[in-house]
Amino acid sequence: MTDDGGDRLTTDGRLTTDARWRARARKVIPGGLYGHQNVASLPGGYPQFMSSGLGAHVWDVDGNEYIDLMCSYGPVLLGHRHPRVDAAAARQAAEGDCQNGPSPRIVELAEAMTATVEHADWAIFSKNGTDATTQCVTIARAATGRRKILVATGAYHGALPWCTPGPSGVLPEDRAHLVEFRFNDLSSVEAAMDAAGDDVAGIVVSPIRHDVGVDLELPDPAFAAGLRSLCDRSGAVLILDDVRCGLRLHHGSSWEPIGVEPDLSAWSKAIANGYALGAVLGRDSLADAARSIFTTGSFWFAAVSMAASLATLEVLEEQDTVGRTVKIGTLLRQGLSEQASVRGIDVSLSGPVQMPFMTFAGDQDFALADVFARRAVLGGVYLHPRHNWFVSGAMDEADVDKVLQVTDTAFDDVAAAAS
Amino acid sequence: MTDDGGDRLTTDGRLTTDARWRARARKVIPGGLYGHQNVASLPGGYPQFMSSGLGAHVWDVDGNEYIDLMCSYGPVLLGHRHPRVDAAAARQAAEGDCQNGPSPRIVELAEAMTATVEHADWAIFSKNGTDATTQCVTIARAATGRRKILVATGAYHGALPWCTPGPSGVLPEDRAHLVEFRFNDLSSVEAAMDAAGDDVAGIVVSPIRHDVGVDLELPDPAFAAGLRSLCDRSGAVLILDDVRCGLRLHHGSSWEPIGVEPDLSAWSKAIANGYALGAVLGRDSLADAARSIFTTGSFWFAAVSMAASLATLEVLEEQDTVGRTVKIGTLLRQGLSEQASVRGIDVSLSGPVQMPFMTFAGDQDFALADVFARRAVLGGVYLHPRHNWFVSGAMDEADVDKVLQVTDTAFDDVAAAAS
Repeated sequence: MTDDGGDRLTTDGRLTTDARWRARARKVIPGGLYGHQNVASLPGGYPQFMSSGLGAHVWDVDGNEYIDLMCSYGPVLLGHRHPRVDAAAARQAAEGDCQNGPSPRIVELAEAMTATVEHADWAIFSKNGTDATTQCVTIARAATGRRKILVATGAYHGALPWCTPGPSGVLPEDRAHLVEFRFNDLSSVEAAMDAAGDDVAGIVVSPIRHDVGVDLELPDPAFAAGLRSLCDRSGAVLILDDVRCGLRLHHGSSWEPIGVEPDLSAWSKAIANGYALGAVLGRDSLADAARSIFTTGSFWFAAVSMAASLATLEVLEEQDTVGRTVKIGTLLRQGLSEQASVRGIDVSLSGPVQMPFMTFAGDQDFALADVFARRAVLGGVYLHPRHNWFVSGAMDEADVDKVLQVTDTAFDDVAAAAS
Repeated sequence: MTDDGGDRLTTDGRLTTDARWRARARKVIPGGLYGHQNVASLPGGYPQFMSSGLGAHVWDVDGNEYIDLMCSYGPVLLGHRHPRVDAAAARQAAEGDCQNGPSPRIVELAEAMTATVEHADWAIFSKNGTDATTQCVTIARAATGRRKILVATGAYHGALPWCTPGPSGVLPEDRAHLVEFRFNDLSSVEAAMDAAGDDVAGIVVSPIRHDVGVDLELPDPAFAAGLRSLCDRSGAVLILDDVRCGLRLHHGSSWEPIGVEPDLSAWSKAIANGYALGAVLGRDSLADAARSIFTTGSFWFAAVSMAASLATLEVLEEQDTVGRTVKIGTLLRQGLSEQASVRGIDVSLSGPVQMPFMTFAGDQDFALADVFARRAVLGGVYLHPRHNWFVSGAMDEADVDKVLQVTDTAFDDVAAAAS
């Protein structure tokens, strides 16, 4: 297989199936696709359309197989089409999904989530991570009667006008009461709180810094504890945006290992291993505020994704998926580090090992990252040049070996491009 | 079965299964439930937790069977667990759902929707009706560079801060640029446009007036045409919120029968017969604006609900579901009208016959509607005292007969209560 930098050709020069679907897509979808799965800005070689997945492996519409290091940008945690999760979903689908009321699965899942997550006394469920972060902000304002929300500069908390990274169609009023601070910089939070006076409703923060295109940053425990103290002193609500990290870093809230409990947390992505579900978890002290807001959606009470989430939580615990992905992620990081090192390539391997990211020193326009990613994807490893990767519980040592065989070649390409 | 006004008891005085789930729910979900499926404000007798559905029939967790006149508040159009829709979904699930990119189903569905809906040249997909209405507003602002959005007083366009009917946690800024008009009152729209000056980005309107708790109102064709003219003259974007009505009133946009085409339309609920999906359809002239906004979600590219939607569109057309529900809805309306008439009960039967609603004259606190609904639900007919009902394509003449047997008794109760 060769490629022409975007629409790919087969070895005998015909358009790939992917290219034919792209041509059809451009006629009926603005830009051919929208949002985070649009590969228009990725180097040539990436398929736009995917066909299938199983465990740690995925296939595009041309039948090319990849070891999957993106996990659908986070939702797939146990591996694609996990048999126990899919069986639980199928059993529930055979009974009922979207009905005139929820099924008991909503109660069982609220019980399971509040048992799993230390700070949580209650749960509400939705469909998007952005539903959950927006509910957190609304609940914080309802609880405090205040307006200001502190957010870290560059952090991603969803794609509604109040938080989307794209400015088009957004009004100043949508963000009128956001005040920015810098992740891991407590003095910047203190300055933001001073600027907001007695009007701070809440602080929204992700467990790690995972802004697109920059090295990931783990939280300084003193920073996290400082946020907790500032909220305790001011009466502001501490909101942990665990949408991307939740259940990947810890079988519970991602700041439990460093001993900091938020008042509210937002969840989505991995909590149902790929089935559409969002959740807000909160403390009892915020239950009245949560009850006071009107929030709903046509499919929010549907039972199938809740049954999938219940199975996901069980499997995660039984198989120690966090421990397993840490082990596999460590092997991957060690391998990548050695491959870069022997070639004298200066890389930064950042983030938790199960949510790894790699950048090249001085590679500000991602030219080297694109060279690396292009060789990886053409070699059968699906990773991303500008977004953190994800290790699933289905990945094993043999998969890591195969990934490293491909990245060995990719580092050669980088060395050639950099020289 | 008897009931105690909320938590129901079995005939021998034990708590029902529903009551036991409610007790557990209250411990882990604020208020026991949130949103539109919370039965706390409904008369005693309504189950909170549902178990199953098949065709036009649904079952609660105690095994009570109901003829379903709510259709999950709109998503179920062909009937519960429609075999062709569920088979299409299962086939897609066995291949792939939430992946690193969309499957070709997104292209096929965009093609099918734009072929079905006259004004549509392109489509984008999401998970909630509110996702779709919010995208429409954002696209209109991006396209025009203007701020004001005209909305009808009392209309429901979703549950985010800019549109939720609940004020808790909402700031004035969230609604800073909304200007209200009255449905079917073109002079009120003209006044709103005058007030907004040259800053009108768009007008959002539902195909019919379906505000909760009031009689439904069909659109005056001159009103709809007037909105179109006002938008054409001013350059504002006409946005049809077809989330609740879409595909129920017409196999296409709901204003096609009266000859008015919007620039954008918002869809969700019935388009995948219960699978979670939202959509915006638009004209080519707005494709660049649609492309310019950053909008995305973790599960928006998942293929199963799109496969379900493709099957739904096929079945709708083959079985003439709109025609079928009009016929069944007409029988239902005639029966209800006769039953009220013979008792001298003054009712208003409003809305399209396939989205019927019934109110009682002078029943401002819904006391009589509650009496009626309570007897209906205890008799095995699931309808709603304050929200329009929905007729599914699975309902047949025998179901209407059974409904009317139950409502005959319910009208007796109303007559007794009113005397």
